[in-house]
Amino acid sequence: MSATPPTTTVGQSTNIAWHAASVDRPTRAQQRGHRSAILWFTGLSGAGKSTLANAVNGALFERGLACYVLDGDNIRHGLCKDLGFSDADREENIRRIGEVSKLFLDAGIVVLTAFVSPFKADRDKARALVEAGDFIEIHCAADLDVCEERDTKGLYAKARAGAIKDFTGISSPYEAPENPELKVDTGSQSLEACVAQVIGHLEGKGLMAA
Amino acid sequence: MSATPPTTTVGQSTNIAWHAASVDRPTRAQQRGHRSAILWFTGLSGAGKSTLANAVNGALFERGLACYVLDGDNIRHGLCKDLGFSDADREENIRRIGEVSKLFLDAGIVVLTAFVSPFKADRDKARALVEAGDFIEIHCAADLDVCEERDTKGLYAKARAGAIKDFTGISSPYEAPENPELKVDTGSQSLEACVAQVIGHLEGKGLMAA
Repeated sequence: MSATPPTTTVGQSTNIAWHAASVDRPTRAQQRGHRSAILWFTGLSGAGKSTLANAVNGALFERGLACYVLDGDNIRHGLCKDLGFSDADREENIRRIGEVSKLFLDAGIVVLTAFVSPFKADRDKARALVEAGDFIEIHCAADLDVCEERDTKGLYAKARAGAIKDFTGISSPYEAPENPELKVDTGSQSLEACVAQVIGHLEGKGLMAA
Repeated sequence: MSATPPTTTVGQSTNIAWHAASVDRPTRAQQRGHRSAILWFTGLSGAGKSTLANAVNGALFERGLACYVLDGDNIRHGLCKDLGFSDADREENIRRIGEVSKLFLDAGIVVLTAFVSPFKADRDKARALVEAGDFIEIHCAADLDVCEERDTKGLYAKARAGAIKDFTGISSPYEAPENPELKVDTGSQSLEACVAQVIGHLEGKGLMAA
């Protein structure tokens, strides 16, 4: 078997399989009929990041796009199960999610990430990993009192009782995006309206077709 | 916006976007027309893992399958750039690659990993993350003297000179798979023959169609 490394030109024109190996992002986009992108949902716990990301994912899938949601369910129990919620661990958590998102982007997938991602510096590092236009920051904006009133997972009550340390909004800061690509009012709008807003933005950016 | 978590049943039949969100692996396979799988290439440096994985990836792509290669180029410089080559770091490296592979599997992608992955225990942990049949271990079998003679990247010379520590085959062990799904003689076969062997195996397992 040839030991020619992937980056070297192969001189044998009969080596069909080898030539076929050069599957880059534009080639994938052409086959799939759409560009890939990172849709980075950020916001307080209970703001509706996962709900919105999954609903948008469903809408994209129905249109035939290759798409996938990264959220706490599949990251915190797997890739990042060695990490806690200290500032350093949150930073490493977001770093890994940024790197994995970049892999999905390269694979031609629209990847939707749904994490609190409270620190601006960490989100900006994830943004800096990819080209301009590939990273779409979506601020799921709901007031703290709305999120705490919902308390979907009962976490705010535990945080107020001191049972959870470093809880964003209560005992750890949330740095809201200053210039996100999109700000969605997940505090008062219906889910349908939120989904429509995101899809409308993606259509406007030409992300739905190659 | 509804604060209903993703795992809860939604009672509103008008909530179309929400119902669409339930995109699971079987649904993806049905849309794509093929199952996903992890093709785990293992072998010595210079055995031809990346070359074979990329060639198989190209062949799968030409047949319209969603597929992606994870290798040193996109992992060691990104997700795992904080890791070295000590036994502990190799273990963590393979753990993360296993977890990322599981995400791609879930996303409906045939993911091809091309890493030395010298320790049986680490490969077995990656295998244990997914269901039986989802993990296809492919031993790229080439004798050490063949790999060292090729020395594609000049690493063996450096390892012999002591400039690289813990180099698999020289100063760190390679534990060959005992019962891999597939053993490919990458030491003497042509690339075309190796690709054909892998594709034939996947066809035999019904992996090319839903």
